[in-house]
Amino acid sequence: MTIASLQRALSDFAAERDWEQFHNPKNLVMALAGEVGELTEIFQWLAPEQSAMIMSDEGQADAVRAEVADVFAYLLRLADVLGIDLEAALRAKMIKNAVKYPVPGAGGG
Amino acid sequence: MTIASLQRALSDFAAERDWEQFHNPKNLVMALAGEVGELTEIFQWLAPEQSAMIMSDEGQADAVRAEVADVFAYLLRLADVLGIDLEAALRAKMIKNAVKYPVPGAGGG
Amino acid sequence: MTIASLQRALSDFAAERDWEQFHNPKNLVMALAGEVGELTEIFQWLAPEQSAMIMSDEGQADAVRAEVADVFAYLLRLADVLGIDLEAALRAKMIKNAVKYPVPGAGGG
Amino acid sequence: MTIASLQRALSDFAAERDWEQFHNPKNLVMALAGEVGELTEIFQWLAPEQSAMIMSDEGQADAVRAEVADVFAYLLRLADVLGIDLEAALRAKMIKNAVKYPVPGAGGG
Repeated sequence: MTIASLQRALSDFAAERDWEQFHNPKNLVMALAGEVGELTEIFQWLAPEQSAMIMSDEGQADAVRAEVADVFAYLLRLADVLGIDLEAALRAKMIKNAVKYPVPGAGGG
Repeated sequence: MTIASLQRALSDFAAERDWEQFHNPKNLVMALAGEVGELTEIFQWLAPEQSAMIMSDEGQADAVRAEVADVFAYLLRLADVLGIDLEAALRAKMIKNAVKYPVPGAGGG
Repeated sequence: MTIASLQRALSDFAAERDWEQFHNPKNLVMALAGEVGELTEIFQWLAPEQSAMIMSDEGQADAVRAEVADVFAYLLRLADVLGIDLEAALRAKMIKNAVKYPVPGAGGG
Repeated sequence: MTIASLQRALSDFAAERDWEQFHNPKNLVMALAGEVGELTEIFQWLAPEQSAMIMSDEGQADAVRAEVADVFAYLLRLADVLGIDLEAALRAKMIKNAVKYPVPGAGGG
């Protein structure tokens, strides 16, 4: 399934429930921030080493998967509503970052 | 390009720069939250109607695309490090949400 | 009651529950971000005009007060743990901002 | 200086610059979230132990103080615009939390 087809599924889901009226970019950015806040709460008291083990606890793993899915859903909706090609935007950013952060020791003569 | 191949590209990018030591889930959740914060700043003073027109301003559009790409990048890295299949997690969440929020007027006899 | 005495009350509250071990600045920043996320969720689908009326609904008002209190609590804890004088930091920032954003039409000769 | 007088100073600052039109609760929640995002970025790659030492680096300390001040400023503005008494809201929350999280070993017979 491509990113575009996931976006279509989410768009249909919203349209069927008459939620499109709420899905302007400002509101979707807030919804995205809210979901990232929930994800943050799961990790806030964990040591970094504990955070790396979180998926071995089934209850925690379910919670993390659900929040990550919510973040992904609102990011897809936001990009869709803004007409942003997520993959193209990411590739463009990676090219910029490759220049900004050159690989140490690479590219020598 | 699939989600998995984007994740591989980001993982290689991090490995080449010896950044993997910083990419534990706790830190990546914070990095994701930081990027969502930057996206939020772009939209904070806009009326919802203005937010819907933001991509028609080329400078603003570039800024939004760059921040959306950063959010996507850290979400992909986080899912990768946690071993979460983003697409599967999203589909599972959509099935749950379809039950939680039934289509009004649908499913009648 | 001063800011310092609120901080003392929160510090005692944490100490009595043996929570100080979790209250390092990194974790407290995440806790602050998590609470701001909850506050964001309350406002995400509201039009700006609706957001200005939110306190006239008693249930909503209670929820907003509770989240605002949580944000304040973690901000006070964070400043306390970092040894930051919140009031002094705010005054210093306001002086900087007064230079950065001069009053239009003022100061002319 | 009391919380109320800090709020008055911030309110005057906004009024002089004709910013009150932007300071509805929805926008202020986003501005608060944006500033917390900037604070999060400062801490994202630090180990918890490093985060506890951050104020010993003068450059970092200045950045943290500036971001903490911004968070405080928007929290004060938000509470002011909503008519929330921050101190009363915090005390009410602490009383609730004292019941929710009793001190271990205390209150026995």
